[in-house]
Amino acid sequence: MTPRYDAIVVGGGAIGLSSAWRMARAGMEVAVVDPEPGRGASWVAAGMLGPVSEVHYGEEGLLALTMASARRWPSFAAELEADTGSDIGYRTTGTLVVDVDDGDRAWSEDLFRFQCSLGLEVERLSSRRVRELEPAVAPGVRSGLLVKGDHQVQTRRFVSALLAAAAKRGVTFHHQPATAVDVDGAPGTAGGATVRGVHCDGTQLGAPVVVLAAGCWSGSLAGLPDGVVPPVRPVKGQILRLSGDAERPLLGRSVRGLVQGASVYLVPRADGTLVVGATMEEQGFDTTVTAGAVYELLRDARRVVPGVTELALIEARAGLRPGSPDNAPLVGATTVDGLLLATGHYRNGILLSPLTADTVAALAAGHEPPAEMAPFRPTRFATAPS
Amino acid sequence: MTPRYDAIVVGGGAIGLSSAWRMARAGMEVAVVDPEPGRGASWVAAGMLGPVSEVHYGEEGLLALTMASARRWPSFAAELEADTGSDIGYRTTGTLVVDVDDGDRAWSEDLFRFQCSLGLEVERLSSRRVRELEPAVAPGVRSGLLVKGDHQVQTRRFVSALLAAAAKRGVTFHHQPATAVDVDGAPGTAGGATVRGVHCDGTQLGAPVVVLAAGCWSGSLAGLPDGVVPPVRPVKGQILRLSGDAERPLLGRSVRGLVQGASVYLVPRADGTLVVGATMEEQGFDTTVTAGAVYELLRDARRVVPGVTELALIEARAGLRPGSPDNAPLVGATTVDGLLLATGHYRNGILLSPLTADTVAALAAGHEPPAEMAPFRPTRFATAPS
Repeated sequence: MTPRYDAIVVGGGAIGLSSAWRMARAGMEVAVVDPEPGRGASWVAAGMLGPVSEVHYGEEGLLALTMASARRWPSFAAELEADTGSDIGYRTTGTLVVDVDDGDRAWSEDLFRFQCSLGLEVERLSSRRVRELEPAVAPGVRSGLLVKGDHQVQTRRFVSALLAAAAKRGVTFHHQPATAVDVDGAPGTAGGATVRGVHCDGTQLGAPVVVLAAGCWSGSLAGLPDGVVPPVRPVKGQILRLSGDAERPLLGRSVRGLVQGASVYLVPRADGTLVVGATMEEQGFDTTVTAGAVYELLRDARRVVPGVTELALIEARAGLRPGSPDNAPLVGATTVDGLLLATGHYRNGILLSPLTADTVAALAAGHEPPAEMAPFRPTRFATAPS
Repeated sequence: MTPRYDAIVVGGGAIGLSSAWRMARAGMEVAVVDPEPGRGASWVAAGMLGPVSEVHYGEEGLLALTMASARRWPSFAAELEADTGSDIGYRTTGTLVVDVDDGDRAWSEDLFRFQCSLGLEVERLSSRRVRELEPAVAPGVRSGLLVKGDHQVQTRRFVSALLAAAAKRGVTFHHQPATAVDVDGAPGTAGGATVRGVHCDGTQLGAPVVVLAAGCWSGSLAGLPDGVVPPVRPVKGQILRLSGDAERPLLGRSVRGLVQGASVYLVPRADGTLVVGATMEEQGFDTTVTAGAVYELLRDARRVVPGVTELALIEARAGLRPGSPDNAPLVGATTVDGLLLATGHYRNGILLSPLTADTVAALAAGHEPPAEMAPFRPTRFATAPS
C-alpha cells in the first residue's frame, strides 16, 4: 500500500517547510520527507533579511527577487504567527553596514553608489553618527550605511513555527531520508516524463507533485533524469552564537562589518544572543567546526564591536548552503511533469522563503506563479538535448 | 544511624581521589563526598607535568615540591594502571618552550639562565633545531628550550582511573555536596578541637579523619573554626580541545609558547586531540566560556603552531583552580585534631597528586609524611591567636 498525497516535499528546511505549509493551507494533502526537518542549513542561518545591504555587483536580477520576497515577509510572518500563536522574532530594526579601515571605506563608498544607482533606500553615516546609533561599535570605524528596510527573523523560531504550522494544517512528516524520485517515462520522448512519487528507505510514497527542496543535497537523489539534476553544491558556513545580557544588549540592530576586505555580521536577538557569521567555504559536505574559522570570526567581530569579547561563547556550528552557478535559486517546473525544484537559495534561503513557497504553491495548484520568479526557472541551466 | 569510616575525603578531584585511593590501598575504610567526582578543575586540566618548564622566579621552594612529586609520577602511574588495568596516557616525550618575538626571546633566555642556576636539565635550541624537532612550529619562532624531564598525563583518563581504582579498593562515594565539617570543641581551648565527621545534605557521616580536598571550594564549608578556613580562591582557566588526525599528529610533544609576554601551551594526546590552554582569570566562581578567551587562545596558539587552524574545535571549557596566597598548596594537619587539608594546588594539582596523596595517607595512618611537604603545612597562614 503506497500512501498517496497531493504533493510530496523532499527536504524539511525553511524552503521545504514554507512550501508544504502554503500548499496545505490551500487545501492540499502534503507530505514532507526529511530525517531531521529544520536541522539543516536553516538551523544555522542568522536570519538577516537584507536584500539591500547584501547586494552584489552583477546580481541586479537577484536583487529584484530578494526585494520582492522581502516585501512579502511582513504578511508571511503575520500569517505564520496567526497559524501558530507563536512569535517568530521578525524585527524591523534595520541593518547598519560599517567599515573599519580606509580600504573598507572605499568598498563601502562603492557599495553606497551602487545602491543609490539602483534607487535603493540607504543613508550614509559619519563615524560619529554610527556610534550615536550603536555605541558598542568600535571607535575606529570610518563610516557607515544605514539600511532601514533590511530586517531580521529568528531563524530557529521561524523553522519551529513552520514545523508547527505545517503539522497543524495536516502535513504528514516522514522522518526518513529520501533515496530516489520515482519518474515514469523520459523527458524528450513520446509521452514525456511524469513524476509518480518518492522512495524513502523501505517506503514508497505517491503523488502527482514532488517538490525537490533538499538544499545542497537536491542533486543527490537517484531517479532524476539527466538535465533535471540541479547544479547545486554545498557552500560551508560557520557561525557562532554568543550570549549576553538581554536587559543591556550590545547592539540594537544587525551590523555588517567590512573588515580588511572580508565581511562579518552580528545579528542581535531579543534574548541577548548575538549571532556572528559567517564563513564561505568550498569544503564539500564537511561540517566540521574549525579552529581557524572560529578565530577569524571572533577576530573580525571584535574589530567591529570590541565588547563581544565579554560575551559567552555558547555555540559554534557549520551549515551547508545550497550554492548554484549564478548564486540564484532554481525554483519552478522541470522537464518532468509534476516535478518542481525549489533549491539553490545559497545565502538567501530564509529571505526567499515567502516568494519561493508562494511560487511552489501556485504551480502545484496549477495557478500562475509570481512573475518575479520567472527568471529563476530551473530550466535555465538545462543543456541542449543531445 | 551515622555511617562511620576511617577517613572521609571532601572533594573528588585528582587530589581527593588520589588521597582516597592511597588510604584505601593502605587498608583504611574511606568515603569520598562529591556531587560530581572528577568533573571539577581536574576534568579541565591539560595534564602537563612540567616542574622545570613552568618554574617561576621566587618560587624555588615550590620547585623542590613539584620536582619531588614529578619523581613519584612513574611509580604512581604504574601502580594506578596495575590497580585498574587501564592506560592513563602518561607520556615521557618532554616539553618544548618556544618564543615568537625578540621580547619573548629575552624572556626565554632569562628563564634558561634561571633554570641553569637551579641545576635543572634544560637544553637551549636554535630556531632551526626547534623546527627539526617539531616541524609544525611556526618558522618565525626565535629559539627554544627542550626540557626532556617534563612529561604529561591524559587527565581525563587519570581521573577516570582514580575513580575506578578507589571503587575497587572499597572507597564509598557519596554523590552529594558536603555542607559542613563536624568539629567538637574549639582550637586553643582546654581539650582543643577534634573532627567528628561531615554533614552532607540530610546525611551525617562520621570519621576520626577528615580530608578537606575540595579545591577552590575548600574554604566554603560551614563548621570550620577561624584560622582553619583555608585562604583559597578560584582562578579561572579556559581551555580548548582541538581534534586532528591521530595518524599524523601536528606535534610530538607538549609545546609552551611565549607570545608577546603571554604564555600558551599545546599538549598533544595520542588520539590526535590537542589541548590548548589556558587563561588565568580572577572572576570568582564564574565558569562561563568567553568569546575573548577563545579568541586569545586561538590567536596565540596559531602564532606558535599555524596548523592549528585546520583542526576541529571540539570543546571549550572553563575550570577553577584553587589559588593560594603564595601559589603553593596547603597540605597537612590543622589545629583541629584529625582534620587534614589538601588544597590550594593552583596550577599544579595533577603534578602534585602523588606527593599530596602520599602525605595525606601517611598523616591519616599516623606515619611520618614525606619531608618535601613540610614547608607547605596549612598552619603557615594561621593568624596569631587573639
